[in-house]
Amino acid sequence: MKIGFIGLGIMGKPMSKNLLKAGYSLIVYNRSTVPVQELVELGASPASSPKEVAEQCQVVITMLPNSPEVKEVVLGTNGVLEGALPGTILIDTSSIAPEASREIAARLSEKGVRMLDAPVSGGEPKAIDGTLAFMVGGKEDNFDTCLPIFKAMGSSAVLCGDIGAGNVTKLANQTIVAVNIAAISEALALATKAGVNPERVYQAIRGGLAGSTVLDAKAPMIFKRSFDPGFRIDLHIKDLNNVLDTGHALGAALPLNASVMEMMQFLKNNGLKHADHSALVQFYEKLNGIQVKVLS
Amino acid sequence: MKIGFIGLGIMGKPMSKNLLKAGYSLIVYNRSTVPVQELVELGASPASSPKEVAEQCQVVITMLPNSPEVKEVVLGTNGVLEGALPGTILIDTSSIAPEASREIAARLSEKGVRMLDAPVSGGEPKAIDGTLAFMVGGKEDNFDTCLPIFKAMGSSAVLCGDIGAGNVTKLANQTIVAVNIAAISEALALATKAGVNPERVYQAIRGGLAGSTVLDAKAPMIFKRSFDPGFRIDLHIKDLNNVLDTGHALGAALPLNASVMEMMQFLKNNGLKHADHSALVQFYEKLNGIQVKVLS
Repeated sequence: MKIGFIGLGIMGKPMSKNLLKAGYSLIVYNRSTVPVQELVELGASPASSPKEVAEQCQVVITMLPNSPEVKEVVLGTNGVLEGALPGTILIDTSSIAPEASREIAARLSEKGVRMLDAPVSGGEPKAIDGTLAFMVGGKEDNFDTCLPIFKAMGSSAVLCGDIGAGNVTKLANQTIVAVNIAAISEALALATKAGVNPERVYQAIRGGLAGSTVLDAKAPMIFKRSFDPGFRIDLHIKDLNNVLDTGHALGAALPLNASVMEMMQFLKNNGLKHADHSALVQFYEKLNGIQVKVLS
Repeated sequence: MKIGFIGLGIMGKPMSKNLLKAGYSLIVYNRSTVPVQELVELGASPASSPKEVAEQCQVVITMLPNSPEVKEVVLGTNGVLEGALPGTILIDTSSIAPEASREIAARLSEKGVRMLDAPVSGGEPKAIDGTLAFMVGGKEDNFDTCLPIFKAMGSSAVLCGDIGAGNVTKLANQTIVAVNIAAISEALALATKAGVNPERVYQAIRGGLAGSTVLDAKAPMIFKRSFDPGFRIDLHIKDLNNVLDTGHALGAALPLNASVMEMMQFLKNNGLKHADHSALVQFYEKLNGIQVKVLS
């Protein structure tokens, strides 16, 4: 099966390499050509536009920053829609607004082109290892058809509902991650302010009801003051924008998302937009005039 | 070694039973006498006041609702302080304000009585199983002396710092638990409002960065609409009161605690003070005019 891959960034490049390893023929496109050369050396074929990718492939995968980029690449001039034959499946693995997924799918369906929205969790390390988790929206038969492709790039793929449900699930995921990091930061700030070693607090609570994947991933980064991403503040702001836009369009009020969004805006305004989202602790440090550090 | 146990409630009764099982001689006191009889039948000796408990024991354990009750039982008329000999250790396993722990310890120390604050996490099931986690504040030699006693009632005990540090750690724990339950509720409310089955969302995200002990404990309760405690809203309100009082006394601002406190106040005002804290989802349901339920 010929697969097209558009968007060879920090996530897309390792994902496409895993498809090559799994034996798929790959046609690739990227705005800048450097990563294209790297993939061509590994056996992929280059294309000059998303349209040219779509003309040659039964499945086209996109991995792009946000809704506008996906709309441009799929629906724009020389885009996927212009080249795709009826029956082609677009798998959009970008994290975008669910409403944008539904809009794009509706346009594609006019030409008989099918779509799954399939954002991932796991970040660059899991993209490299091929252990991403796909949250998928779309029709079950399309999902079943694409399952081997998901398995070549990830360790799990869950069909969450119809088109857009993948991105709704991703927004739910990003809500919990952002708010839990802020909760951990608030708790460690309180402990620090009270003169208690935050590292002891972490050791005492991690095995109980306060334990989480985020706590074990981020508390050690906070203690080492190592804020290299990981997942960047500006990308999490993008996701919280999509959360709040989606919520407001649906008539849902999401007060904790709104609060943590403001904390992230503060960090962005203070030069930390490229820091890991665990830098949320620095909001609490500035708020409370402390530094959350391990006491010896 | 003779151990005194004061406060034979939902937590104290199973904890004292585990001390008997471990072979300790136990002197017990409780305001109402029903649980005292139960312990006496298992081999404990009854006392007529906290003072009388303290007169006979080298270690006295308290498990009481909040700071005022601990102050009354320890410092009040016929209290522990009146009966305790120099060198006695008071282990207060209640979850109270750290400042109250420090006040009580200071009063005890005037008479040469030592103290550890050692609140627990785990709730009734772990109290019964003897697998509580103790978060301890106090001097290291007192902690070392009492370690076998903690091991008879729990699976772990971590010394977090000097007196009060146990309760600071507990407040950090309760912050993370409350805010994470609210975050999960907000995320599931968004998914429901968007028409996506919240049970699919849970399955898709639980293995990733959004995963937590709280998510696996509470999401199934929410889907079954089973809000039996567990841990009651009114007790979590007590803890968040202690969080905010402690923060404000220290000069710390804790915005997420404040937000979740208001959500819990709303639930209390709507007849849910005895519901499990996972009833936070009902705040979001009322806010957004939905019910988070599993779609078939």
